[in-house]
Amino acid sequence: MEHTDKDHPENSKYSQTPVPDRSCNAKDFSSIYSKDLLPHPDGEKMTRGFLQELVSTLLAYVTKTFDRTSKVLDFHHPHQLKDGLEGFSLELPDLPENLEQILVDCSDTLKYGVKTGHPRFFNQLSSGLDIIGLAGEWLTSTANTNMFTFEISPVFILMEETVLRKMQEKVGWADEEGDGIFCPGGSMCNLYSLLLARYNFYPEVKTGGMSDLPRLALFTSEHSHYSIQKAAQVLGIGTKNVFVVKCDERGKMIPVELESSIMQAKAAGCVPFYANATAGTTVYGAFDPLPEIADICSKHGLWMHVDAAWGGGLLMSKRHCGKLRGIERASSVTWNPHKMMGVPLQCAALLVKKKGLLQECNQLGAKYLFQPDKQYDVSYDTGDKSIQCGRHVDVFKLWLMWKAKGSEGFGSQVNRCLENAEYLFNRLSERADFELVYRSKPEHSNVCFWYIPPSLRGIPPGAERERRLHEVAPKIKAKMMEEGSVMIGYQPTSEKVNFFRCVFSNPATRKEDVDFLLDEIVRLGCDL
Amino acid sequence: MEHTDKDHPENSKYSQTPVPDRSCNAKDFSSIYSKDLLPHPDGEKMTRGFLQELVSTLLAYVTKTFDRTSKVLDFHHPHQLKDGLEGFSLELPDLPENLEQILVDCSDTLKYGVKTGHPRFFNQLSSGLDIIGLAGEWLTSTANTNMFTFEISPVFILMEETVLRKMQEKVGWADEEGDGIFCPGGSMCNLYSLLLARYNFYPEVKTGGMSDLPRLALFTSEHSHYSIQKAAQVLGIGTKNVFVVKCDERGKMIPVELESSIMQAKAAGCVPFYANATAGTTVYGAFDPLPEIADICSKHGLWMHVDAAWGGGLLMSKRHCGKLRGIERASSVTWNPHKMMGVPLQCAALLVKKKGLLQECNQLGAKYLFQPDKQYDVSYDTGDKSIQCGRHVDVFKLWLMWKAKGSEGFGSQVNRCLENAEYLFNRLSERADFELVYRSKPEHSNVCFWYIPPSLRGIPPGAERERRLHEVAPKIKAKMMEEGSVMIGYQPTSEKVNFFRCVFSNPATRKEDVDFLLDEIVRLGCDL
Repeated sequence: MEHTDKDHPENSKYSQTPVPDRSCNAKDFSSIYSKDLLPHPDGEKMTRGFLQELVSTLLAYVTKTFDRTSKVLDFHHPHQLKDGLEGFSLELPDLPENLEQILVDCSDTLKYGVKTGHPRFFNQLSSGLDIIGLAGEWLTSTANTNMFTFEISPVFILMEETVLRKMQEKVGWADEEGDGIFCPGGSMCNLYSLLLARYNFYPEVKTGGMSDLPRLALFTSEHSHYSIQKAAQVLGIGTKNVFVVKCDERGKMIPVELESSIMQAKAAGCVPFYANATAGTTVYGAFDPLPEIADICSKHGLWMHVDAAWGGGLLMSKRHCGKLRGIERASSVTWNPHKMMGVPLQCAALLVKKKGLLQECNQLGAKYLFQPDKQYDVSYDTGDKSIQCGRHVDVFKLWLMWKAKGSEGFGSQVNRCLENAEYLFNRLSERADFELVYRSKPEHSNVCFWYIPPSLRGIPPGAERERRLHEVAPKIKAKMMEEGSVMIGYQPTSEKVNFFRCVFSNPATRKEDVDFLLDEIVRLGCDL
Repeated sequence: MEHTDKDHPENSKYSQTPVPDRSCNAKDFSSIYSKDLLPHPDGEKMTRGFLQELVSTLLAYVTKTFDRTSKVLDFHHPHQLKDGLEGFSLELPDLPENLEQILVDCSDTLKYGVKTGHPRFFNQLSSGLDIIGLAGEWLTSTANTNMFTFEISPVFILMEETVLRKMQEKVGWADEEGDGIFCPGGSMCNLYSLLLARYNFYPEVKTGGMSDLPRLALFTSEHSHYSIQKAAQVLGIGTKNVFVVKCDERGKMIPVELESSIMQAKAAGCVPFYANATAGTTVYGAFDPLPEIADICSKHGLWMHVDAAWGGGLLMSKRHCGKLRGIERASSVTWNPHKMMGVPLQCAALLVKKKGLLQECNQLGAKYLFQPDKQYDVSYDTGDKSIQCGRHVDVFKLWLMWKAKGSEGFGSQVNRCLENAEYLFNRLSERADFELVYRSKPEHSNVCFWYIPPSLRGIPPGAERERRLHEVAPKIKAKMMEEGSVMIGYQPTSEKVNFFRCVFSNPATRKEDVDFLLDEIVRLGCDL
């Protein structure tokens, strides 16, 4: 075992790690305060020195993130962190603290956090630490602007247009169709899609609200993301009008079940208007059968949304893009580059086939922001397309990564993640101490499995085995967190007891990390 | 005039500005590609070199931002930027570009953008470039995590709790009440407030939707932010059920008008449930009379929301916090630290008085994310309070700034901005070539005024003068953008022709910049 952090005291303060390329002369910040930095007239040197010092800390962290001998996390309970560990206090003062303390606080924040870019962090659909993306984020925060008008975001507004157009091409939409917007996360993208669909069929909802409308019904699979339910709740449609469509054992929506749900909704007096198909479900990584769903939507006049938040990245790979065949028939698509494409958080796009609809649906034309009598082409003032007014600049990091990798670079990155998944699947298939949740080869990078500790192997299938198996994953996860060696998520489904879900989206992960994961699960779980 | 950028060719490439503290040895990136960086096994040196090179560019930009001899922006029309200026191409390639090109792209992105931290950028409520906040953002993007669970954001989740508690104290809520969440912008905060109010009175809306509810009515002033209307539209309430309450000439809601709007709504068969009071309106910076509005809300059983997105910062100032007296009676409050407190974008909080409501209203309990059988106190898994699922970490920069400035530092920062506003107001009162939109001393940092060019001074009040005056601000603004010397916004209201709105939120701005603004308006407008 190589978890050296706890063994070596010098590892307890990253900020004290000697960093060879420190260029700042001012090393003592204990009598310097934020007011001494720019815009203070003599603040330039101190500002450069302070930011360089911070960058040294960040670079040390970046290096450590990719170092397999470092831990993924150094776990502490909430109360431990709140009590203040080794002088790390979360409390906010009335009087300023000096910049030495601020730098120590920065180091401590990183120290007690989780290295989501570590090659052995398998916990979330978003992982990795892309250096170009990181550079993009540093620049974005330095530019510190907002996305509502061309006036204050000329470059970023145009980049958004360029990137969205490129994504629409990958979806397969023709040049004359397609619009879109970057949103704060995939759930918001899904909310936008529902909002647009409702407006598309019932534009009067904008002024009159839902009271004037028939009872609307929408459809989504039992394996789809919960944000569809949340959106229905926010929009005043209500979760009971969300019809949950059955999936096959692989987690794919069953088209005939969609059709019968539509009938059922109609029989109950509802008006079906929207169906969500998932391209890459959260837990199983399943792809719903898009062409069949598209046929049904078109037969019944439904808005077809494809939630490709997780699966959209596969469109960048020539090898895997066929799994999303039919997506071109969607009226709207959610695609989060911050997941499979490894773009830093957040970066999520909603794509809409019908041009102009976003603007029509959301615009209110606030005059203090969107003056019609500007000297430039105000169609580039895209802020009124959004429901957020000010939008964070989420596009630049993706634009920069696309420049640096090219479409092909993203494609190979996706391919490697899916190769890791296949490798894990193959290892698990060979072993008797693990059991796969579904036996078919993974379509995406999700692999779901149980670890069966020796004490359970003799127990016949049934309630007792299930009860004990349900406790295995949480117990191993708890130990794993304490050790900090690796991180992987688990969950039950309505039919299955707690199982591990491994996902690959980090280009830093190699086959040796997959082997490490299995060894670590066995090591932590073999005496359960 | 000191706008040297266009005169000196070396200023056209910031990246080529010699930077004294460059520490990286690898200066030639023309044969290096993103794949050579980490996680490449030999990528550490290149990664450090590349990021250091980027940081040099960013530091040069930071310095230039505060330099009054540099321009605020270098304006180009959309088509000019799209055509590609001096080799700056927005197009995305199939094959990777080398890192030299990536660094040039970064420089160009900054070059053609807008320096929102420039002391003469008065265009937006959010301005300034706080160095500590910037450091916070750089760290946040390096940590690259999400806010849904304590598991992956232990430190940031606790910081959010600490900061929100502190903000609730400033609002004046007792220890045992108060909850909150950081949202992507003030509009989203306002949307949350409406969502919570609806759920509070009609919890059945979560499942049944709006169809089962009476026709709801809400109230907001004619000077309030348009996001209240947008939220009503998104939530399925509809804009026609938003009753717009009249304001006095200073832009403050008239309480008796609120009361009669409530009566009017009831008479129309609606059920009043929510009133929004604004603390710091967008254009005039007016504070609605909160105690009187609170009395009316409590009399009629309405949820009182205070949109203090812009005015909330004044709570940090002992001198000015009295302007928000009555805010403690609100059921919810929107407060954007990214506006008056100068925190980098985005940083916006919704505060809710009733504990537990956020969770109840929004939770769906997705099992793959919020497992109840974790080893730590899962009440810290705050993700299910939100409608976004994954949330960007917006709290760290604010936490770090609060540490570095203390509450008192924020207070003085706010005071200085309001002193600038008073200075501008006094200058304008003395001059015959400017006219104030309202004559009373500004309560916030907004100052609204017309410039009257010599050619208009002899024209008597009336339609002809109004028509010509309406064109003055846009024409001056267009010239201003071309010059790039200063930026200020303008707008009409329903009753008044185009006027300038100056707002101060940038601590870098001094009285000399206010003088410069007026001189520049005269210089650009005197021959209109």
